Amino acid sequence: MSEHETDTRETVVDKYTATNSFAAQIQQLRQSIDGIDTEIVKLLARRFAITDTVGQLKAQAGFAPADPDREHQQVAQLRALAEQEGLDPMIVEQYHALVASVAKERHAHIAH
Amino acid sequence: MSEHETDTRETVVDKYTATNSFAAQIQQLRQSIDGIDTEIVKLLARRFAITDTVGQLKAQAGFAPADPDREHQQVAQLRALAEQEGLDPMIVEQYHALVASVAKERHAHIAH
Repeated sequence: MSEHETDTRETVVDKYTATNSFAAQIQQLRQSIDGIDTEIVKLLARRFAITDTVGQLKAQAGFAPADPDREHQQVAQLRALAEQEGLDPMIVEQYHALVASVAKERHAHIAH
Repeated sequence: MSEHETDTRETVVDKYTATNSFAAQIQQLRQSIDGIDTEIVKLLARRFAITDTVGQLKAQAGFAPADPDREHQQVAQLRALAEQEGLDPMIVEQYHALVASVAKERHAHIAH
């Protein structure tokens, strides 16, 4: 980040060049973001394939779609991991809420 | 999945053992889910570190925090990738809504 500041200060003599330099840096960072999103979508595809199998097993075994103990445990683990990785734990709670609600909907659908 | 069906049919003679077999399979699948979540949380930590840098660059350049064209393009790419990976595109839309709203909040915070 201090590297970026140095870059822009060197080019700020010409406002147009400076703006282009910001845009070029943002463009490059966006490519990294897109790469991360691609990895995450592939992981989500694997995750829901697995949770669908869990849903089928639960339906066969007559287990309920929801498991609150498991969910509390997951959230606690994810919050701890987030803190370790320097990520706002609120973000992983929102991530978990998303994947858990979709997984449970699909489990309920599979059970019917 | 047909493998799981075969497994459970072999053990269904004893209802207790069959239930344990389901539970054991679910337990194993949950470990895979936890592994995927760990990878995703690490990727999210990297993603928000990068979007924070983008937010700083935008603030320095005087660019607005939001970029609707970029967002539409991202959603279209992620939907296409989801379809290719056999994932419900609605899930990636929800994923994108989550990360984009958090990133924009943080950009607005950085700009102030």
